[in-house]
Amino acid sequence: MKIPSLLIPLMFIFTTNASLPVEVRGDEGMFLFNELPTERLKQRHDFDATSAWADELRLASVRFNVGGSGSFISSDGLVLTNHHVASDTLHKLSTPEMNLIENGYLAKTLDEELKAPDLELNQLVAIENVTERVNGAVAADATSEDAVKQRRAVIATIEAESFDETGLRSNVVTLFGGAQYHLYRYKKYTDVRLVWAPETEAAFFGGDADNFEYPRYNLDASIMRVYEDGKPAKLDHFLRWCQDPLADGDLVFVSGNPGRTQRIFTVDALKFLRDDRIPYTLDYLRRKEILMQQFGLEGTEQARRARDELFGIQNARKAYTGMLGGLQDPQTFVAKRGREDRLLSDLKKDPEMADLVSAWADIKAIQDDKREMLDQSVSLRSTLFDLALQIVLLTREDLKPNEERLREFTDSSRESLMQELLSTAPIYRDLEQVKLADEISRQIVLRGADNSLVQEILTGKGPRERAAALIEGTKLDDVDYRSELIDGGHDAVFGSKDPIVVLARTLEPEYRRLREKNEQIRERERQAYAKVAKAITAIEGTSGYPDATFTLRLAFGTVKGYNEDGKSIDPTTNFAGAYDHAKAHQGQPDFDLPPSWMKAKAEVNLDTQLNFVCTADIIGGNSGSPVVNRKGELVGLIFDGNIQSLTSDYLYSDDQARAVSVSGVGILEALRSIYNAKDLAESIGK
Amino acid sequence: MKIPSLLIPLMFIFTTNASLPVEVRGDEGMFLFNELPTERLKQRHDFDATSAWADELRLASVRFNVGGSGSFISSDGLVLTNHHVASDTLHKLSTPEMNLIENGYLAKTLDEELKAPDLELNQLVAIENVTERVNGAVAADATSEDAVKQRRAVIATIEAESFDETGLRSNVVTLFGGAQYHLYRYKKYTDVRLVWAPETEAAFFGGDADNFEYPRYNLDASIMRVYEDGKPAKLDHFLRWCQDPLADGDLVFVSGNPGRTQRIFTVDALKFLRDDRIPYTLDYLRRKEILMQQFGLEGTEQARRARDELFGIQNARKAYTGMLGGLQDPQTFVAKRGREDRLLSDLKKDPEMADLVSAWADIKAIQDDKREMLDQSVSLRSTLFDLALQIVLLTREDLKPNEERLREFTDSSRESLMQELLSTAPIYRDLEQVKLADEISRQIVLRGADNSLVQEILTGKGPRERAAALIEGTKLDDVDYRSELIDGGHDAVFGSKDPIVVLARTLEPEYRRLREKNEQIRERERQAYAKVAKAITAIEGTSGYPDATFTLRLAFGTVKGYNEDGKSIDPTTNFAGAYDHAKAHQGQPDFDLPPSWMKAKAEVNLDTQLNFVCTADIIGGNSGSPVVNRKGELVGLIFDGNIQSLTSDYLYSDDQARAVSVSGVGILEALRSIYNAKDLAESIGK
Repeated sequence: MKIPSLLIPLMFIFTTNASLPVEVRGDEGMFLFNELPTERLKQRHDFDATSAWADELRLASVRFNVGGSGSFISSDGLVLTNHHVASDTLHKLSTPEMNLIENGYLAKTLDEELKAPDLELNQLVAIENVTERVNGAVAADATSEDAVKQRRAVIATIEAESFDETGLRSNVVTLFGGAQYHLYRYKKYTDVRLVWAPETEAAFFGGDADNFEYPRYNLDASIMRVYEDGKPAKLDHFLRWCQDPLADGDLVFVSGNPGRTQRIFTVDALKFLRDDRIPYTLDYLRRKEILMQQFGLEGTEQARRARDELFGIQNARKAYTGMLGGLQDPQTFVAKRGREDRLLSDLKKDPEMADLVSAWADIKAIQDDKREMLDQSVSLRSTLFDLALQIVLLTREDLKPNEERLREFTDSSRESLMQELLSTAPIYRDLEQVKLADEISRQIVLRGADNSLVQEILTGKGPRERAAALIEGTKLDDVDYRSELIDGGHDAVFGSKDPIVVLARTLEPEYRRLREKNEQIRERERQAYAKVAKAITAIEGTSGYPDATFTLRLAFGTVKGYNEDGKSIDPTTNFAGAYDHAKAHQGQPDFDLPPSWMKAKAEVNLDTQLNFVCTADIIGGNSGSPVVNRKGELVGLIFDGNIQSLTSDYLYSDDQARAVSVSGVGILEALRSIYNAKDLAESIGK
Repeated sequence: MKIPSLLIPLMFIFTTNASLPVEVRGDEGMFLFNELPTERLKQRHDFDATSAWADELRLASVRFNVGGSGSFISSDGLVLTNHHVASDTLHKLSTPEMNLIENGYLAKTLDEELKAPDLELNQLVAIENVTERVNGAVAADATSEDAVKQRRAVIATIEAESFDETGLRSNVVTLFGGAQYHLYRYKKYTDVRLVWAPETEAAFFGGDADNFEYPRYNLDASIMRVYEDGKPAKLDHFLRWCQDPLADGDLVFVSGNPGRTQRIFTVDALKFLRDDRIPYTLDYLRRKEILMQQFGLEGTEQARRARDELFGIQNARKAYTGMLGGLQDPQTFVAKRGREDRLLSDLKKDPEMADLVSAWADIKAIQDDKREMLDQSVSLRSTLFDLALQIVLLTREDLKPNEERLREFTDSSRESLMQELLSTAPIYRDLEQVKLADEISRQIVLRGADNSLVQEILTGKGPRERAAALIEGTKLDDVDYRSELIDGGHDAVFGSKDPIVVLARTLEPEYRRLREKNEQIRERERQAYAKVAKAITAIEGTSGYPDATFTLRLAFGTVKGYNEDGKSIDPTTNFAGAYDHAKAHQGQPDFDLPPSWMKAKAEVNLDTQLNFVCTADIIGGNSGSPVVNRKGELVGLIFDGNIQSLTSDYLYSDDQARAVSVSGVGILEALRSIYNAKDLAESIGK
């Protein structure tokens, strides 16, 4: 589970990727690169978004498989992203002796650049609309069970053909709630190395307390480099770096991969979020937060092992708390319901549209099914169990033709999957044991101790004792053993006596049953939301952006402060503010600047811009997105939203909600004056 | 909510106080002082528990109204208890400038002794069996609704008569699941002053990580003094202090107030705990833990304000996690079920007993009702709301005759109640606001946002905004205003426009409805468990201790180590171990000994015994209980149980479960060599 800051909360993506509520406000919108709002940009901001400008920006943007975004920033492969996007890699590269998360890192030579064990970066090179082919393959009168299969098959075939033809990673993306399907082709980079990361004290200055707050003073940045054939990749497309700070009112663009929005959701769907889904998720997150904290209390090394995951959990917990707060405000529903009532009333007047109304009732019924599925899970979320389950599924899926397989096991996904399964990232047995014990305990609560599957899990032991036995007996943390199992295929996996593999086999049927049910619910949602999208377009007109899907989008906005409790908040901060902030919070955890900052204070130009806010429409997954100016030059690096933006999952506002970025000039100043990285600073943007 | 360590988790006491599963193992038992196991003590330990010995110990024991225990230790009013029992008072006496919890305290003169704002100590002076009178007042064919009223009336009358006659606090206690009712008379001490407390770093050395662990090195002790008429109370009964350390195998006795056990519970009742009650409680505790942590992150003063409550919550969360772990171990149920099956099978063979069998089915049915009530709550747990609700209830109850009132509002409880309602302890508006917002948010989840009561709570606002408005408008943190309301009675309270009073009035009917339902469920439980108790006594014989009821009990055991993971754990630790432990855990939070300890290291006799474990049967509420030797001399101070003892709520074992105490000689050594309190050390025990 990886959920830092604006990283996409991957574990919670099994929602509809639906379309947009129109009546777009202010700078609302996460636009497809093949359907840019050129007219609006011209009208609102007098900006010509030429295709050359857009192509250059798109090809300089990358997606991180850990759930974030980034950009190419030099011709020799440098990549800029957030420290908290890199932190998964920093964590995996760290040891008790070399704690990269705590101490940061700087490679002085190419030789010192550290290879990430399982990072994959995707550069979006082409988009093709395949809507007709996908919809044509699904029979109009198909049951949701058959529709799931038919859609799965045609998508697998399209992806396989594209992969065979181009060698590129090929994914069909569902857009506008199933009204459109686009084929995305990505160039993949799988040799990614760490060049520079600051200390967590600088990157996450203010810690959980300041997370989602503003004003901020965080150097949440890291630099990596992509390699090809063992050498720094030669890049034709990368961002130039603007040497000037931003000013109030400046137009900026964000090119990144927002993970998920739910803005098309009907009132009933939002009620389900408010009354069931988010409270349930928060209970789960708090459970995991306490578990990781308790593990970390056992010692400094345990704290190090748990830290990255704990940070992700805390971040998600704070984000969901804010989302729930917005949904629990009756005014949110007054607004949503008013618009929905008008829309339905208009629909009913038009005989040709009246049958679309049934979609709202369908969606209401679907919420009941989702509620029933909410606590039905069989995954014992832990690295070792996840690996075992994937391997069991893989060898079973491989017996089927490509187009009948579950998505992640198709041929075109194989390379990415293998990189995950054979990652050399360390797996900590003590941490795994604690997580397994907790998940087993949770299964007892979810299913009741008398449930037969629970008894098969427990084999007569209590959760802690059982987890200890599983860890004692497994060899799955050994990459060679995993490789052996995978190579041995079905016979090896189904003959294995490794207790975690055996357990995964035990739980596989239930996993498949639940997954099938969830996919059918999603299919029905797709069909219903496609109708809703059609209705909205017909009644309100379209302004054209689909809900976020963790694919590349363009957002735009202006650098702009806001008012909070009668106080005017300036849109930018500087290094002087960072030192002041540390002083004002002396004695509080996570408010110490690192020694490197304290030592370099006299060298730092304290007026240099450090962070800024803008009105661009972002969400989790946008972490690490480049912010560029009219000229397409890099001016910043998205790393957070403020508290007021936490409702933007279902509601955009530019009243107080803001995206928070590190300033480009701030990164340069830090590299030069604090991190002794003048050469690196010189080489970026070139 | 006050739940530190072995403090009784007050919020969760609305369970049956039922009787004992016999087949007493080892040193199992929490015995009534009027029904001591003299024969067993003679047989097992060759000890004569004379009534003089027992009376002296009983009269030197006190109960703390915050949920703990203590003892008189000098003729001039000194009282010994745990630091974590005193911490409620330390917290209330602290200010940002004088942080008693962090820094500890030593009064050099009587003038410097600090008066606790709302502490009440109870000394048990007499016990009278009133079973016949109570049962005689409840009609045999009464509905559970009528039975609740009849029982409430006769108990109120007995208590009122006793109070009028003696002036003593008089409480009727339900024992053996309703098979017995005893009238307890207490001398009350309400002027209690702080004499000495160590720093939290010494008292809670090892923090949450070491809580419930052993070996331990904690000075979890504090000394107070009771006053009468503004002068130190003259005491005839107090404990002498043994000057020698304990040795392996020594017999010891614990005199204290265990809060709650559930050892009589049937298999179905334990399943309800395992599958519903405890998981639900843990979700709630984790929610509150994160909430308090988050509040504390706002600043050092906020951390100070939240600390005492946070500690209590963490302690309860760890305790319940351990309890659940035990219940989720299938072996626990194998044992419980085996005994229950044998019992039921024997019962069915005896025609005179066969009708008792129905109690098991009744208890099973009651669990369903309890499950339904589990998430039905209307209390917005926060100091201000609790005060408002109590005041609203008080003025309404006062319109009724004494015997019809809810228990806490009868005449005989009035003095204790008023001390609570008019406490001068500080109330922190910022903390109250955060708690109210969270509880309001929780009501939305529990009842759904469309619920009419929820809408009355919200008045069109979101939870945070509504909580802000409640705090903005209330004067309830002003003792004079509360006093005015109470003196003004029904008219003042029901005419008040204070928004929190108005809210309490809004919720009062629902509170009464839920309370009534819960009391009826408890009445049915009492009747069923009285049958179970009768059956057990008939089939297995009796060994005579009722489940814990937060009343004075005697437990006994021996000083004894145990084996853990093949390692032998010594029963005692010393000061040298404390310094070693600090060194071994350098850099971990809560493992720093305070400066006073580091400074005094050369003065301290490092061999002095600091903590020890014994097999005595204790539970939450025993915190602060004196441990005495055969001569009745104080040798220790209970402060914790080990992890293995967390199942003793429903199952005693002396295999690994141990009670953990501070050694009496350790307290003396600390006072003399670390705290410059030689005079105080000289005066105790005399």
